[in-house]
Amino acid sequence: MTSLDLTAPVDEITRQLIDIPSVSGGEGAIADAVATALAECDHLEITRDGDAIVARTTLGRDQRVIIAGHLDTVPIKGNVPSVPTLDGLGIIGRGSVDMKAGVAVMLSLAVDLIEPTRDITWVFYDHEEVEETKNGLGRLSRRHPELIKGDFAVLCEPTQAQIEGGCNGTLRMDIVLPGKAAHSARSWKGENAIHAAAPVLAALARYEPRTVEVDGLQYREGLNAVGVTGGIAGNVIPDQCTVTVNYRFAPSLTTDEAVQHVRDVIAASGVGECETVVTDRADACRPGLDAPLAQGFVDAVASTGAPEPRAKLGWTDVARFGALGIPAVNYGPGDPELAHADLEWCAIDEINQCRAGLAAWLTS
Amino acid sequence: MTSLDLTAPVDEITRQLIDIPSVSGGEGAIADAVATALAECDHLEITRDGDAIVARTTLGRDQRVIIAGHLDTVPIKGNVPSVPTLDGLGIIGRGSVDMKAGVAVMLSLAVDLIEPTRDITWVFYDHEEVEETKNGLGRLSRRHPELIKGDFAVLCEPTQAQIEGGCNGTLRMDIVLPGKAAHSARSWKGENAIHAAAPVLAALARYEPRTVEVDGLQYREGLNAVGVTGGIAGNVIPDQCTVTVNYRFAPSLTTDEAVQHVRDVIAASGVGECETVVTDRADACRPGLDAPLAQGFVDAVASTGAPEPRAKLGWTDVARFGALGIPAVNYGPGDPELAHADLEWCAIDEINQCRAGLAAWLTS
Repeated sequence: MTSLDLTAPVDEITRQLIDIPSVSGGEGAIADAVATALAECDHLEITRDGDAIVARTTLGRDQRVIIAGHLDTVPIKGNVPSVPTLDGLGIIGRGSVDMKAGVAVMLSLAVDLIEPTRDITWVFYDHEEVEETKNGLGRLSRRHPELIKGDFAVLCEPTQAQIEGGCNGTLRMDIVLPGKAAHSARSWKGENAIHAAAPVLAALARYEPRTVEVDGLQYREGLNAVGVTGGIAGNVIPDQCTVTVNYRFAPSLTTDEAVQHVRDVIAASGVGECETVVTDRADACRPGLDAPLAQGFVDAVASTGAPEPRAKLGWTDVARFGALGIPAVNYGPGDPELAHADLEWCAIDEINQCRAGLAAWLTS
Repeated sequence: MTSLDLTAPVDEITRQLIDIPSVSGGEGAIADAVATALAECDHLEITRDGDAIVARTTLGRDQRVIIAGHLDTVPIKGNVPSVPTLDGLGIIGRGSVDMKAGVAVMLSLAVDLIEPTRDITWVFYDHEEVEETKNGLGRLSRRHPELIKGDFAVLCEPTQAQIEGGCNGTLRMDIVLPGKAAHSARSWKGENAIHAAAPVLAALARYEPRTVEVDGLQYREGLNAVGVTGGIAGNVIPDQCTVTVNYRFAPSLTTDEAVQHVRDVIAASGVGECETVVTDRADACRPGLDAPLAQGFVDAVASTGAPEPRAKLGWTDVARFGALGIPAVNYGPGDPELAHADLEWCAIDEINQCRAGLAAWLTS
């Protein structure tokens, strides 16, 4: 079994982690290595569930923070093992950004912070990069709800070492427009379902997405057609057209409210009869940065030179904490635009910065 | 080899023809039977090309008419051999309508009309029900242009024993709208190609198709979206959307003019940048019913009790004659709505009526 040296510098730990392949579904080896390394820490209570590992301090502090990261990556594209960038300032490799640098920060601190000022629950989990039903954090919260409790959560997903609070929610809705089929040589005998979609597309085209302030952060929304399909043959008047809409909504809305908003936009478009079917929905999450506990974290990260917290616009697993009533933020090394890229690489500076930011908070 | 008795009543000939399966590509047996039966007629000059047969009188008449029909059918669905309808007034079977009843009328007359008042070119051809490139009439007109010459043509496709003149043309055009891909969580970084299609669909929805009079017949047009496709994933702003439009246009327009008309409608919609690609085009055909030769035909058919000639709206092989400068009409037994139906059946009355109409014209 590959073993991890968690006393190494955090960029070295990052490389050790990248060099253990852990594509979703194949997290066994990396989970074994993490579990074995943490088992040596007397100050941590370890629970393993499948390839997810929870390591907790139990110092009886007033507050408990959860710090979480996933162990899996998207498929390798010739980018394992890791190599340094030419200038030596970065690490190239699958998962460097998403999110083994973040996991390295967590592991390095888990070993070092024997007496943190808040109790800490370190969560390392599997199956983040695949379908929602397999998600290891979701599984932990169902099977071990007592372990996923805390006053605040930090997810070490890449944010270029600045705080990105909460996340927008997302929903997908199919707008199904009916028609009546006919041979296109006698089109007046049919009703064209694609033509019926015109008001829907026009409403989406002129829709002006809102920007909503939540707990001091600005959440920019988006309402878009992400798919359209209609027609079965070049000589048939189409009897169905489906427009798939994706709404990214601010944490000021519940998902039910967001669904209603989309339905309102469609209804106001002047469209005729149509069916609306929600095919996918994921809650938004408030950042909770107005809580005193979070303020200490914001100050500690600011002391590393990071810019002001900003809103997280993509959906991330912080929303799972939101659903459990735990405010949560994203904070980790790496440029999220490079996640999943063939040339995925992470700046070592950002890895050190994140370690410093979290260490300052958890010891102050 | 199955042989045909062309001295039988025309409904009997219809049944003999249905009982020789001739799905497109498998016309060998029926072509053999037709060629053999016609070879016994001294008044006909026979040419065979593959499974197409041309039989001509050569009486030196001032005018020559072409009478044509295809030998193939769409696939059999348990409807061969033929059976009579319960009331005995119709024939059930694959090809009864499309178009072995028409072919039976042709064969019966080809044998009987030894001295018609106009020279006649009887054309029996293969591969009508499949892709255009295989069409036997098209092949004959390329390989034997001298055989496909005449002053007027009748295609015995099903029209319920009334004259349907000419045919509308048809063209398909893809309207390709560009966009710029982006993650839908940051939709403002992209440009939504599906939204860009809104003005195109709106223009099609409000378009009022014309009805155009040509040679005394009313051609009703149609301009429709028959397909739309866009979007690659539920979280990506689509960078392309394609609307496929089908224009059925009257014989007053050349196909080039029809293409320009569609482009004009799209341009006037207010759409932004887009590409228009013609993917399919087929000329319209004038009915030519204003010519003296045709008038005799119209009168002869009227004497059988048939209603006034009307425009043919679907595209048929008459357009091949139109492209050769030969005005052409459809005239044959059977309800075209039953063509290709599992329960395909043809009224014997209509078969006899068509035989009578053509005989009256060609002997007067």
